[in-house]
Amino acid sequence: MSQSVSPLAPHVFPELPPVAGVKFATAEAGIRYNNRTDVLLMAFDRGTTVAGVFTRSKCPSAPVEWCEAKLAAGKARALVVNSGNANAFTGRAGRDAVKLTAEIAAAAAGCRPREVFLASTGVIGEPLDATKFEGVLADCAARAADGPWLEAAKAIMTTDTFPKVATRSVDLDGVPVTLVGIAKGAGMIAPDMATMLSFVVTDAPIAAPVLQNLLDRGVVDTFNALTIDGDTSTSDTLLMFATGAAAERGAPVIAETRDKRLTGFRAALFDLLGDLARQVARDGEGARKFITITVSGATSKRSARKIAMSIANSPLVKTAVAGEDANWGRVVMAVGKAGEPAERDKLTIWFGDIRVARKGARDPDYDEAATSAYMKGSEIEIKVDLALGVASDTVWTCDLTKEYVAINGDYRS
Amino acid sequence: MSQSVSPLAPHVFPELPPVAGVKFATAEAGIRYNNRTDVLLMAFDRGTTVAGVFTRSKCPSAPVEWCEAKLAAGKARALVVNSGNANAFTGRAGRDAVKLTAEIAAAAAGCRPREVFLASTGVIGEPLDATKFEGVLADCAARAADGPWLEAAKAIMTTDTFPKVATRSVDLDGVPVTLVGIAKGAGMIAPDMATMLSFVVTDAPIAAPVLQNLLDRGVVDTFNALTIDGDTSTSDTLLMFATGAAAERGAPVIAETRDKRLTGFRAALFDLLGDLARQVARDGEGARKFITITVSGATSKRSARKIAMSIANSPLVKTAVAGEDANWGRVVMAVGKAGEPAERDKLTIWFGDIRVARKGARDPDYDEAATSAYMKGSEIEIKVDLALGVASDTVWTCDLTKEYVAINGDYRS
Repeated sequence: MSQSVSPLAPHVFPELPPVAGVKFATAEAGIRYNNRTDVLLMAFDRGTTVAGVFTRSKCPSAPVEWCEAKLAAGKARALVVNSGNANAFTGRAGRDAVKLTAEIAAAAAGCRPREVFLASTGVIGEPLDATKFEGVLADCAARAADGPWLEAAKAIMTTDTFPKVATRSVDLDGVPVTLVGIAKGAGMIAPDMATMLSFVVTDAPIAAPVLQNLLDRGVVDTFNALTIDGDTSTSDTLLMFATGAAAERGAPVIAETRDKRLTGFRAALFDLLGDLARQVARDGEGARKFITITVSGATSKRSARKIAMSIANSPLVKTAVAGEDANWGRVVMAVGKAGEPAERDKLTIWFGDIRVARKGARDPDYDEAATSAYMKGSEIEIKVDLALGVASDTVWTCDLTKEYVAINGDYRS
Repeated sequence: MSQSVSPLAPHVFPELPPVAGVKFATAEAGIRYNNRTDVLLMAFDRGTTVAGVFTRSKCPSAPVEWCEAKLAAGKARALVVNSGNANAFTGRAGRDAVKLTAEIAAAAAGCRPREVFLASTGVIGEPLDATKFEGVLADCAARAADGPWLEAAKAIMTTDTFPKVATRSVDLDGVPVTLVGIAKGAGMIAPDMATMLSFVVTDAPIAAPVLQNLLDRGVVDTFNALTIDGDTSTSDTLLMFATGAAAERGAPVIAETRDKRLTGFRAALFDLLGDLARQVARDGEGARKFITITVSGATSKRSARKIAMSIANSPLVKTAVAGEDANWGRVVMAVGKAGEPAERDKLTIWFGDIRVARKGARDPDYDEAATSAYMKGSEIEIKVDLALGVASDTVWTCDLTKEYVAINGDYRS
């Protein structure tokens, strides 16, 4: 199925600088696609630390299990990502494929297999033929360079309609360090893809436990605040690598989570993760509108998140937005079904800056024409105030269109 | 929007007998629709008991709040159901409309307002003009008869494409008693409808607390095992009325939940509730396929239900079924995201009788052609065995088609 680029795609891509200590190359391994790159090899300098956050699925893919096991040592020398086959639910063959891929990559990058991190995205349930990486990864290692990042982002796409990249530059104790991240979205293609992958690299010298802490905290309001359809992939993987190359230019090695010098870096990282997460929502399958949902006045942030996600995952709310209908009744429905503290007669609801409902009924001043005009836009904000407490939360999603159903259901027709 | 009748509609409707002690009539009150009935009045003989189960929404409609409050007394003399306006999220005006409706109905039926039960389905957030019931309900009371039930079922439809009715006859301590039930489905129409209503009447003499116990237990594996889109209405209402008229023919009055004579009646009631619930799934918006999902080998029934519902509510599973794709990878995904005990490498998955996956991988004997043929049918069964325990559960849903999106999102286009 050919798809046009999402109308929510960025108009220009940012300039993506090299990150000292990281080189990479892409190749066509012929896993599933023809005439496009489908494998990415990154090689990291000795001393690179790694942290990761993975799907909470009880049925994770073989690469996810590999990465989780290898993360304990906190060291990385190579990353291999392939698109076209997720190597999920492939049993013993899946574990063998992961091991062989790591061995091939280790030989290519001159490291040990346990220093190789892996991610796969694509078809579930079909064996991944890892022998296809033989030669290909050695060639990648020989060609590896410090750019262009856009090619790395393209090699890991499945039904994504645009590559997702972001970069930040920030001072670490006065020394400029760089962050670059790439991501692929919740894209599906015949017959069964569903994987969110993201990789972030930095030249900042940060110890693995600190990096893990940063990532654990960083995903809460970024990738974990994102939903396309409420379906959690077996392969969701976010890995972050810190080469430490900036130490040569005087950047301090950060070994403690509480190090005050991390403040700016942490903010830049969270900002970058949010940027990538929002790009994933903007490329949700069939997406025509990017939706930001904010719930305030909740009794706790957890409660606000649960209500916001109930709204974001409601097919009725998402189809209403697709239909350009400011259907606040469905928002009330989604608040009500979340099971969290909420009082109907205290609810206030806005679409953008237009207050459509207050105190348990339609706002008498609600302007239908202004609201209709607002709903025609491609950026829709839904705000709900519960008037019960002071906690709030924001999540992102996209609308639910006929194209979503077509992308995910039309294989056989 | 005009819609054709669901391809999953029954070919013939059952013969629906009168239930002694119940009379009813329908009328055109002009709430929202033109040229169709939109109000149903049922009048019950003195001594009729009542039980009810309602939405768990934290933001229920005004009629739901009324019924819940009046249920304590366990007595009913009248039921008023209107379609076209759900009287939900209408604030003070909504409570006033409920009170006025009950007063008009009480005058018409010759009872007290607190003996009147109410349900509304239709638009959310718009005031219901209860004065439209003046005269109409008195006229209904004057015309009330013991049939035809199909007209009662039609008057409460919104975007339902067929009326939902069911009947059972069963002996109560040797005396035949009758059950008749009607339901309306999760239908939406511009701009915001979402209500499941069902009403069951019997001439069996059953005390209100016993009736409530029967209903509470009866919904677990019937209406609560049903999902169209995971969105819970603010108005879901199931009311059951027992006129006791069969006592004249010698049926015993059942005053204890543990009364052994209830066994057959209980089974008939549960069977009838299941019948109605499945009819609702068969008329889910845009439904082309009726899906039965069974999870076995779970550690508890609660766990099996949660996993079955995770599969049933997964947009990716539902679009795959719409696309006639036996996509067991997505079933694994949905099992994995449920958060319940599950081990990937122990899973077995069947579509119909075809085992497509076992022990964490594709079944080597899996016949793609036979599976494709099976998926073209309109009744799809998905079975998952977790191989962890002995608990199982079954839920029903329908596929997710472009028509669902069209019905719920195309108002403005």
